[in-house]
Amino acid sequence: MVEKVYITYNQVHKLCQESAARILNDFKPNLMIAIGGGGYVPARILRSFLKRPGSPNIPIQAIGLSLYESLPTSASSPSSAPETAGTIVTRTQWLDLSSLEMANLIGKRVLIVDEVDDTRTTLEYAVRELQKDVEAAAEQQGRQEEGGRTKFSVFVLHNKEKVKRGRLPDGMVQEGRYAAARTVGDVWICYPWEATDIDEHDRLAAQQPQT
Amino acid sequence: MVEKVYITYNQVHKLCQESAARILNDFKPNLMIAIGGGGYVPARILRSFLKRPGSPNIPIQAIGLSLYESLPTSASSPSSAPETAGTIVTRTQWLDLSSLEMANLIGKRVLIVDEVDDTRTTLEYAVRELQKDVEAAAEQQGRQEEGGRTKFSVFVLHNKEKVKRGRLPDGMVQEGRYAAARTVGDVWICYPWEATDIDEHDRLAAQQPQT
Repeated sequence: MVEKVYITYNQVHKLCQESAARILNDFKPNLMIAIGGGGYVPARILRSFLKRPGSPNIPIQAIGLSLYESLPTSASSPSSAPETAGTIVTRTQWLDLSSLEMANLIGKRVLIVDEVDDTRTTLEYAVRELQKDVEAAAEQQGRQEEGGRTKFSVFVLHNKEKVKRGRLPDGMVQEGRYAAARTVGDVWICYPWEATDIDEHDRLAAQQPQT
Repeated sequence: MVEKVYITYNQVHKLCQESAARILNDFKPNLMIAIGGGGYVPARILRSFLKRPGSPNIPIQAIGLSLYESLPTSASSPSSAPETAGTIVTRTQWLDLSSLEMANLIGKRVLIVDEVDDTRTTLEYAVRELQKDVEAAAEQQGRQEEGGRTKFSVFVLHNKEKVKRGRLPDGMVQEGRYAAARTVGDVWICYPWEATDIDEHDRLAAQQPQT
């Protein structure tokens, strides 16, 4: 049975707080992209901790991505074989190429925020497709040089140590543009916003060893 | 001095939980629109409680609105006079008319979610502009009749009892398409995602009378 790990709201808050210093130092983001629904809460909390006195809030743009497991293609492949079951990412919301939402990213330092890096499929999709569309927007506007300076970084609350299906661009991890507040095993992470009984959730979290 | 009211994450969670029954019964939303950044957290929590077994999650689309107080136009009007200082709503993110994001709202029951209804200016803007753009999308697609069935409702964590600058459409409140989990006086609400020290925040919240 997969181990369940219960995370309280205040733990999420503190994970964002302690990661903010590194994000400000290393990534210096001008803009956040929250991957909805999981990225909404950490992105909103992070915004408070990234605010510097006298400067405006770092704007958050939201995108929506859903990950579906597609069924194995032949009956002979058991459904438990992960290599045969594909994963499909679908967009439920995206940034608008025509209304300058995408153009706002040109030349910027963009921090993509999600709750968990599990198979990395969603993150790969987000980074790759945003990068592609920002390049297209830069070309459309004749701002290729500026577009080449666009830098994406990633922040997640938890990274699961496991075989990843998705890949991030070369250099992103090595150049320190990937931050996970915590690295965990292949556990079942129970986030507070999914809890039916938040008091019970907190009680279970308190029984766990603190990390 | 304005009274400060401290709200914990778990209180926000429970406000969403207890409002979900009414929202499911009365509004029956097909779709949520989170007004970012304040609406992100309640919208994500609410999604968990609106989920019915066997049905998919209710999708969340995010929009971004910022409220600026414009300066009084003449030096003779003191800056404390609220009637002379205008308020300007600016869009930091919007739904896309061309890529069907807006068309997804045609004929739907759409729940707009924000943290607080203060002067009502942002909510008036959101409802009015979304309504206008959904009508435009319906007309563009020759789906006017369906478009006429689009119903907007509003959920906020807190409604402040005060003179409102913004107005919601006729009938919205009377037809029960407006829900605030709590109605409060004109107090300073401290949401947990703005807290620098979340333990101190919780301590201050615990000292307050519970509502």
